[in-house]
Parts: sequence; C-alpha cells; structure tokens
Amino acid sequence: MQKKHLTAALGLAALLAAGPALAQEGPTDVPVHSVFVLNTLLFLIGGFLVMFMACGFAMLEAGLVRSKNVAMQCTKNIALFSIAAIGYYIIGYNLMYPLGNWSIGTDDTGGYLGAFGVAVLEAVGIGADDADDLSYASTGSDYFFQLMFCAATASIVSGALAERIKLWPFLIFTFILTAIIYPIQASWKWGGGFLDSQFGFLDFAGSTVVHSVGGWAALAGAIILGARKGKYDSSGGIHPMPGSSLPLATLGTFILWLGWFGFNGGSQLAMGSIGDVADVSRIFANTNAAAAGGVVAVVILTQVMFGKVDLTMALNGALAGLVSITAEPLTPSLGAATLIGAVGGVIVVFTVPLLDKLKIDDVVGAIPVHLFAGIWGTLAVLLTNSDATFMGQLIPIIIVGVFVFVVSTVVWLILNTVMGIRVSEEAEIAGLDTSELGMEAYPEFGKGSQTI
Amino acid sequence: MQKKHLTAALGLAALLAAGPALAQEGPTDVPVHSVFVLNTLLFLIGGFLVMFMACGFAMLEAGLVRSKNVAMQCTKNIALFSIAAIGYYIIGYNLMYPLGNWSIGTDDTGGYLGAFGVAVLEAVGIGADDADDLSYASTGSDYFFQLMFCAATASIVSGALAERIKLWPFLIFTFILTAIIYPIQASWKWGGGFLDSQFGFLDFAGSTVVHSVGGWAALAGAIILGARKGKYDSSGGIHPMPGSSLPLATLGTFILWLGWFGFNGGSQLAMGSIGDVADVSRIFANTNAAAAGGVVAVVILTQVMFGKVDLTMALNGALAGLVSITAEPLTPSLGAATLIGAVGGVIVVFTVPLLDKLKIDDVVGAIPVHLFAGIWGTLAVLLTNSDATFMGQLIPIIIVGVFVFVVSTVVWLILNTVMGIRVSEEAEIAGLDTSELGMEAYPEFGKGSQTI
Amino acid sequence: MQKKHLTAALGLAALLAAGPALAQEGPTDVPVHSVFVLNTLLFLIGGFLVMFMACGFAMLEAGLVRSKNVAMQCTKNIALFSIAAIGYYIIGYNLMYPLGNWSIGTDDTGGYLGAFGVAVLEAVGIGADDADDLSYASTGSDYFFQLMFCAATASIVSGALAERIKLWPFLIFTFILTAIIYPIQASWKWGGGFLDSQFGFLDFAGSTVVHSVGGWAALAGAIILGARKGKYDSSGGIHPMPGSSLPLATLGTFILWLGWFGFNGGSQLAMGSIGDVADVSRIFANTNAAAAGGVVAVVILTQVMFGKVDLTMALNGALAGLVSITAEPLTPSLGAATLIGAVGGVIVVFTVPLLDKLKIDDVVGAIPVHLFAGIWGTLAVLLTNSDATFMGQLIPIIIVGVFVFVVSTVVWLILNTVMGIRVSEEAEIAGLDTSELGMEAYPEFGKGSQTI
Repeated sequence: MQKKHLTAALGLAALLAAGPALAQEGPTDVPVHSVFVLNTLLFLIGGFLVMFMACGFAMLEAGLVRSKNVAMQCTKNIALFSIAAIGYYIIGYNLMYPLGNWSIGTDDTGGYLGAFGVAVLEAVGIGADDADDLSYASTGSDYFFQLMFCAATASIVSGALAERIKLWPFLIFTFILTAIIYPIQASWKWGGGFLDSQFGFLDFAGSTVVHSVGGWAALAGAIILGARKGKYDSSGGIHPMPGSSLPLATLGTFILWLGWFGFNGGSQLAMGSIGDVADVSRIFANTNAAAAGGVVAVVILTQVMFGKVDLTMALNGALAGLVSITAEPLTPSLGAATLIGAVGGVIVVFTVPLLDKLKIDDVVGAIPVHLFAGIWGTLAVLLTNSDATFMGQLIPIIIVGVFVFVVSTVVWLILNTVMGIRVSEEAEIAGLDTSELGMEAYPEFGKGSQTI
Repeated sequence: MQKKHLTAALGLAALLAAGPALAQEGPTDVPVHSVFVLNTLLFLIGGFLVMFMACGFAMLEAGLVRSKNVAMQCTKNIALFSIAAIGYYIIGYNLMYPLGNWSIGTDDTGGYLGAFGVAVLEAVGIGADDADDLSYASTGSDYFFQLMFCAATASIVSGALAERIKLWPFLIFTFILTAIIYPIQASWKWGGGFLDSQFGFLDFAGSTVVHSVGGWAALAGAIILGARKGKYDSSGGIHPMPGSSLPLATLGTFILWLGWFGFNGGSQLAMGSIGDVADVSRIFANTNAAAAGGVVAVVILTQVMFGKVDLTMALNGALAGLVSITAEPLTPSLGAATLIGAVGGVIVVFTVPLLDKLKIDDVVGAIPVHLFAGIWGTLAVLLTNSDATFMGQLIPIIIVGVFVFVVSTVVWLILNTVMGIRVSEEAEIAGLDTSELGMEAYPEFGKGSQTI
Repeated sequence: MQKKHLTAALGLAALLAAGPALAQEGPTDVPVHSVFVLNTLLFLIGGFLVMFMACGFAMLEAGLVRSKNVAMQCTKNIALFSIAAIGYYIIGYNLMYPLGNWSIGTDDTGGYLGAFGVAVLEAVGIGADDADDLSYASTGSDYFFQLMFCAATASIVSGALAERIKLWPFLIFTFILTAIIYPIQASWKWGGGFLDSQFGFLDFAGSTVVHSVGGWAALAGAIILGARKGKYDSSGGIHPMPGSSLPLATLGTFILWLGWFGFNGGSQLAMGSIGDVADVSRIFANTNAAAAGGVVAVVILTQVMFGKVDLTMALNGALAGLVSITAEPLTPSLGAATLIGAVGGVIVVFTVPLLDKLKIDDVVGAIPVHLFAGIWGTLAVLLTNSDATFMGQLIPIIIVGVFVFVVSTVVWLILNTVMGIRVSEEAEIAGLDTSELGMEAYPEFGKGSQTI
C-alpha cells in the first residue's frame, strides 16, 4: 500500500500533472471521475474479499482445534471481527491515518502518534467538489478496506492462543489491538509516519504491518499463557493434538487464499488507469503463484523428510506463501513469486517443530505462518524491488516487532493480573465449549470432553 | 432500492439534465456509456454476492438442525433456490416490475397488481439504442440481481419450518411465494406501486419487502405446522434441540454477512458517478457496522443475562444487525449504524424466548431475525432519514404483513388439506433424512436417528 | 471464449473501426483506456470466482468420499491447484496461446502445437503504449483467468479417481494434464488453432475444452485404476458407498455454482461496452437458469423414478446444468437455458447407473457431470446459435475426446508401470488418510477405518 495521505496532500491538480497515463490529455484517457469510481470499486471488491478472510480464519481454526473447543473458536472469531469494527471506528482509523494531524511528530520530521477521533465518512450523495480526495477514492471505501486489514490482524492472534485462553480477556485484548496497537504501528508506515519517511520502509500489503504484528501479539500471548495441558511432558515429549476437522481447515485455507487477492490486489490502491489495473493483475497472478509455491514446497519437503505428505503443513504452506509475497506482490516475476512463496513453505516445515522445542504452543501454526514468513517476506522485497534497502527493511521489522511484542506483553500481563487469562485445568480438560459457553459444537457426535 | 421504472420513464435525455454530477458536461465526467457499464457491473457483483447467500442460508440451517435432518435441509435449500429461479422467470419478474403496465392500478393512482409474462432480456450484443434503459443498467443484470432477492425470501422460510415439514408441500409453497406473493408485494414498493406512490414508504434494500416477508410466511407456516415433537411439554417446559454443527452455522453466518454487501450495496442501483459509488461505500461500511453491533450486543447481553455467551444467538445477532440496517444503510453514520444493528441483536435475545413461550417453534430463529428485526429496521429509517414519516413506514409494514401472513396462511392451509404438510410422527423421530430422502447426511458418524 | 490472439492481431486501430459501439466517436462512448480497465477487471473478478471453484471441488469431493479418505481428498485438491499454477506457468500458457507462433501449423492453415516458454507478464506500471494488447486486457489478468480454467480441469479428475489412487502418480498426472494435455487441445480452439479455424467449432466457456477434457482424463484413469474394493461384486451387485458429509458436498456445489458466474461470464472476455456488459449479464442469468433447471429436473425425476428425492444427484444436477450451458451461455433465452440445464440433470440421473453397470467407478459422478453433460452442452449450441454446424461441433468433440483419452491412457499406463497408481488393498481398506498420509480427517469422530 502506498501512503494514502500523501496522495491526499497532492490533490487533484497535482495528480493531473503527475502520472504518465493521466498526463496525456487525449480523448482516450480514463476521465478523472471514472478513476475515482474505479479506485473506489477496487476498495469495495478488495474489502469484501478481505472481510471473507474472517470466515477463512474461523474455519481454519475451527478445523484445527479439538471438537471440545470448536464453538469457542467460532465465538472468538465472530466476536473479534465485530470488536475490531468498533475499535477501528472509534479510535483506530484516525490513529492510523491522521492525514498530517499527528498528535506526536509531523509529516516532515516523522509521525509517531496519529489523531484521535471517530471515523467520519463523506456525506450522502456527494458531488466531485465534496469528495475528500477526488484523485483517490471515497473515504467510505477506504475505511471499509482498511478496517478489514485491522480485523485480520486480530484473527491471527486467536488461532495461536486457542484451547486455553478465556473469552473475555481475549476480547479485551482484541479491542486494544485493533483500536490502538495495530493502528499506531500501521500509521508509521501507511499513515506516512516515521518508518515511511525516515527509513523508506517498503511493505506493500503488510507482511510486517499486518501479519508479523498479529504474530508478535500471538507470541507474547502464547508465552504468557503457557502451553496446553498435556502438550509437552517433562521428559521433552511432544504430544500432537490433531485438529477435529481437516476439511474445515482446508475450507478456511481456500477462503483465505481467495481473500488474499483482495488483500494484495486492493493494496495497489488504484485501478483507474492502464498501469494500475495491469499492476493489480500482476499482483493477483503473483499472489496465486506464491501460495502455490508454498504448497508444493511443503508437499515435497514433508514427503522427503517424513515419508508422508502433511496436509496441515501444506495448508500452512499456502498461507505462508501468501504472507511471504504480501510485502511485495508487484515487482516479482511469476517465477520469483513462486520461489518466494516456496521459501515461506520451507519456513513452516522447519519452524513449527522449533516452536515445539521451545515449548511455545501455537495451536494452528500462526506464528510460523504470519510472523516468521512475514519477516521473510519483508526481507524478500530486496530481491525484486531496487527501491528497498536492507537496513530500511530490517530496522522497521525490529521496531515494529519490539513495539508490538512489548506492548502486547504488558497488556497480557495486566489482563492476567486483573482477571486471569487462562481457564482452569478442569475447564481446559472439559473443553472451553462446555466450560465457558455451556454448549457443544457437535453435540451429536463430538467426543471432545472425553479426550485430552 | 429506488424505483426502477421511474428511472426508466425518465430516460436518457432527462437523466442528462437531472443529476448534479451528470449535468456537468465537462471532460472529467463519467461518460454515459461507462455509467451503464458500471451500474450493470454493480448488479452483477451484487447479484453473485446475494446468490452466495443461498449457500449461507443452507449452511446456517444445516448447522442448526439435528444431524438426522441435515440432508433434508440441504435438499430444501438447493431446491428452493432453483424453484425461485423458475418462478421468478415465468411469473415473478414482470409481476414485480410492470414498468407501468399494471394489471390493476396505474402509476399515478397506485399500482396493485403488475404485469403477466415471462422475463425477457435484451438481445445479444446490443448497441446503445437497443438498451432497455441506457441511463440505468442492462435488463439481464437487473433480472439477475432481483431474482436473488426473491430467492432469499424463500430461504428465510426454510429454516423456521425445518425438521418436520414435508419436502413437496414446502417446494410448492416456495413456488407460490417466489412467483406470486413476493413479487406482488415487492411491486407495491420497488415496482413503483401504491406503497411507494401513496405512502412514501422507504425500504432501501428490503427490511420489510424481503426479510419481514420471509418472516411472515415462516410465521404462518410455523403456526399451522406446530412445534417439533418433544420441543414443548405440557407443563410448559422447553427442551432445547441443539444444532448438529456450530461451525457450519458460523460459516453460514459469515457467508450471509459477505453476501449482504451485495444485498445492500447493490440496492443503490448505480455506481457510475462519484456520488453513487461513494454512497455504495457508505452502505458497505454501515452494513458491516450494523452486523458488528448486533454481535457485540448479543455477546454482552447473553454474558450479563445468562452468565455465558451464546454462540447461536451471537450468530443470529449478526444477522439481526444486518436485517436492521437493510431498510436504510445509507443515511446513518457509522455510530448510528452500529447502534441500529445492536438493537437488532437485543431483539434476538429477547424474542427468541418469547416465541418459545408462545410455543411457536422456529428452528433457526428466522422469525426474530428477519421479521422482528425487519420491522425494527423499517422503523429505524425514521432515525436518520428525514424523508421518512412514521405512518409512511408503519402502514406499509402492516399492509405487507397482513397480505403476506393471510395469503401464506391460506396457501399453507390448502396444502395441509390437500396433501398434508407435516411428516408422520415416526418419520419425524427417525429424522427426515432417512424417512423422506432415504439417506443420511453423516452416515459414518451421525447418531441422529437415535435422538429426539 | 473468443480467440485472444485474433483480437490481438487486429490491434487498436482496427478495433476503433470495428465494433458498432466503439465506432461511434461521440462523447458518450466509453474511452479506450476505460475499456482496457474494465476488460481487465472482468478477468480479475472472473478469475477469483473461478479460483474459488477449486475450493468448491475440494468440498464437494471431501463430502462425497468416506471419512477415511477425506484428508487425502483435501490434500489432492490443494496440491493439484498448486501444481496447475506451476505447470501452466512454465509450459501451459504459451502452449495454449502461441499468438501465432505455432511450433506446428500456422494461423492460416491451422495451428496444432503452440509455443514453448514460460509465461511473462507485462512490466510494472505500464503506459498505454506498453500494453501487450490495448484493445483487450492486461496480460496478467488474462493469465490469471486462463490459469483457473486449466486448474479446474484437473479438479474434475481428482473426484472420479478418489479413494484408491496413490497421491504421487495423481500429482504427476496433474502436472502433465495442466502443463501439456489441457493447453494443447485448448490451443486448438481458444488459441486460434485448427478446430477454430477449420471447423468453426463453438465452445464459449468450455463444455468440451474444459469439462469434457477433465471427464475424458478421469474416464481413462477410472478404467485403468479399476473400481474400489467392494463396490461391485461378482454377481452384478452394486454397493453404494455414501459420502461422509452431505452438507460439505452441498457447500461445494454452491461454491461451484457461484464460481461459474466467473467461468461463463468472464469468458465474454470484455465488458467495456454496452453490448459486452449486457452480454455478460445475459450469461449470468442464463448460467443461473441452467443450474436451476438441472436441479429441478433431478428433483422431479428422482421422485418419480425412485419415490424419493436424491440429494447427491440434485447437487450433480446443478453441476450438470452448469456444464451444459457452458458451451453457449449467451444466445439462449432464459427458458432455453433452463431447459438445456434440465437435460443436463436428466443425463445425470440416467448415466450414473449406466457407469455402474459398466463397473466404471466414478466416486463423485464427475464423468456424467463433466463429460456427458459436456458433450450435450457442446451439441446444444446448435439449438440457439445459428453460427454452429452439427459437424463443426461433433468432429471437434471427437477429436478432443480421442486426443485426451488416448494421451491420458498412455500416461496412466506409464505411471502404472513405473510406480503403480493404486494403493494396496490393505491401504484402501484402512483408508488413504491413515495409510498414505498418516492422519485422520476427523480424528475424534470419524470411524472410517472400521468401514468398507
């Protein structure tokens, strides 16, 4: 994603003189009003595709937890998506996009803390003069699109902490993440803040700004929360706890894959010119190639290493491929995109066991997929985009990581002290569905409560 | 939705002089042909999103019935969607959109009964002069979009009457509903009939015209059909019959949520100007906010009232929020939309038990969600749209309600007399899957036939 | 689909003089740049819808196999989709679209074998002069869209051969199918090859080029592979092996139905003019009508013939209706489309038992749906499109069929000789999930390994 506010600052007149496609004034050009309509349409389509990723996360997680925790995972996912919509509305949007009105910092010296205030859309039935930014897109579509990214960040956290975290501390964390933590660090890059202006940090659709952020927040939570009862024994043994429904996990992965076209494609932020729509096309093709690369890498690697293909890892390979290409889905060739995604798949195969060795219990593999592949993807920008510099990528990765990990740790610790974030051992063994919700996901055939 | 036929009556010349955006003849404007293309595209995108709601209803209902009735619920959903396509084609479309050719009434004095005849699309490869309405959109796209609304109405009925209604009477009712009942009352508002011309009734995307209609038809059926065996005992006890798969119900809800962007956004009926596309954006953002409000309201309320969050109610809270905003998704602010949706969620929490007290057995909560929240949403137009009047909203709600409830009751009673609408007690206990279809939804792990 | 390369050969200047809508130079026309943007957008939307069909196939097949083979079916589906992305990239795309650079043949005398080389997209941020074909759409969007058709062909095969084929031979076959077999025969029609130039063969979106190809490849595999253990006994008995989850199969069908709007609608290849977008609208409406016709035909027919409605056949009826309309979704009226689809449904009801009589074991009914209805659909073009000739349809059906069946048979036989394509009897009885993958799809409630 480019910086929204700079486009806004340039304004229409500047735009007309700026882009090569629009500079030509011939009768063949796309008229300015059409550009606005088409850019807005890109956000609407991209936005509903990313919205559907909330469903993908829900299905992926519902499939990868045991049946005794499935209803809880569904509850968390629909609730977190809803809370994100409120948090981003009342605080997050303007904190992320201050349009120059920084509470701390300035556009020139570097913005650090955005503006406070609820999101306000353009009025009903605006004319060209009333548009907040005629060269860009409607504010409503921008808000809708950006909200979905914020919500995706929260979805990442929910999978990692499944099967032992209490509902309400998780929802409170979700509110803080979506209203404050995510928007602040996102403002540093996409709001035109200091990571953008001082480091030239490149993160097209958010390998770092979205995925690693979800990953860091999940990592902090997973460490404080501790592993599920029985996952690791004192002698170093690791006990697999297979997910209750691999077809649901597969469904979730395909939905996420679909949604990613909106995630990456929409982040072009424009499709009203030949160049922009052709770029969106490249992004679609590359995004698909990277996911495919991730799957094929895992399929081959698990066959070679374990003698059998691992479906769960293949699904995570698709997602890791997608995360890997997210920081730069435009500049790679199809071949490069496939390889960048393949490395993401390799990362999954090697880091899932690593986390287990460290006794960090990540139920769905969210940390390898979103954090580790997110870091890889952010560095991989260097491979195909000559505008990227090594330090310009590395330092922001570290700054965002430290910020999100530290703040998340503090929030989790406070929540733990105030209300406790982990269910009781009995509740965990019984399953969160019956103990926390008083219902079962599969009342007629689940046997969750009888199993550990 | 605005009235299609009035736009048609105005025609292209009038349009060029009418709208502020189009009145400007400057080179920046969206050309008229592009407007046609873009409006048509809105219907196509909106249409496929609403089409997918059929899948959402199927999954929601499959998840909320017991496993012994899941195959039947899937059968009903795919069959009703198909029957709607035929009913709307041969009768419904022209009955709903007579374009002034009322069988009873006129545009001026008020239309009451539309035209008869099958739907006919524009020819292949039309030029500008051949378009039925160059200022609007292609007839094919309009037909496609409107058909999906008609089908959604039928989907609402199927959930409420699940687990004890026979397949064929249900399908016959579906045909009558989609070919006749829905189109007639829809013509009163969206075809430019008397509710529109005489009452100034406002119902943007159908809180009343679609959702309450499905709800009234379901209510009539539920009363005549009676409750499921064992649901209510003579001493006033209510026996919960939990759904067989909460992840499927969650999936269905997310799909419906996704589809609603097409439902409400497409009902702007235009996106070829800055004003229209910005309005569509507002609608997307508000639709999402209302759903979120519905979920959060239910999550908090069920925690406070019952000490535990209820996932099924939270899902219905999302849907009730969506139904609530459907009558006016454009004019509210994001905050107002969130609150309007939240009230929808509150309605679910309070009216689901109310129906049980009245021993009206609504298996999936369709009546609270679509009828009660639909009425609320239609009245809530008064809160943010100054063009609405209390009586202009209330009287049409009542007229539509009486019409649909009475006609549906008559049809259900006739079907009951002629062929019986309820399966035998043995069939109900065995489950409709084995008794009516001779198959099982989950043959390897369902235990449906052993449970009541 | 029209021929991409002929449009390319015409170029922009020709286009401006060619189409009636574009020939008018008035200020109302859609500007050329907008046409490029809109055509590209059609491919992007169509492409992501068709991509989602991969999920539909996965769910359909996961629902129709027994629980002991569900994880394997999910693995095959996500892997085949990924392998298709690689095969089509490195070989398939240019083999299918040589743009005149035939390795064997010429545009004039008839092309037989396309070009070799990896797919290369347009550069980043192109201007109008850099577009590969300004009158068409961006190459990236064309690649993305066409890739999804290629992948769909492979998805068709996976269902038919389920529950007894080894993973790796299947994946190798997938690579050959998507890199070589599919692209070569597709070039004959859509690349402007000899079926197109010499026979005037009409196959709008691929009843033959996609669906029958998948069907022929599946038929060859099913014959060589043999039936599942216990499916047919020596006395002629046929033992049904019901699918493990009919709601998943229903979900898959609805997703495929949704995706088909992209499949057929996108195959108009243009929506930048009134005529094109109105045609896309007709296609959407007809595609839906045909699916509905297929369902209703099956519902009525199975009730009449078997006394009970068969859900699995109804789902296949929808798909057969969709396949039937795919060769010509544009010219039929809504009524004709409904009937064409209905015949597809009838074909399913009569040919599923026929295959069983021939002891050809097609687990999900892919051959009736994609091959038999594909042939029907290709012939049905004659009913509504006067440009079609009987021999012009029949001969290409036969040529494509012989080519794909023979080549597939050779490939399957080689794979069988080299590595064996069928799992051991013990592995088949245990289920492919545990024997080949070492995991279970439903570890907590599946009882797959105990059943045949």
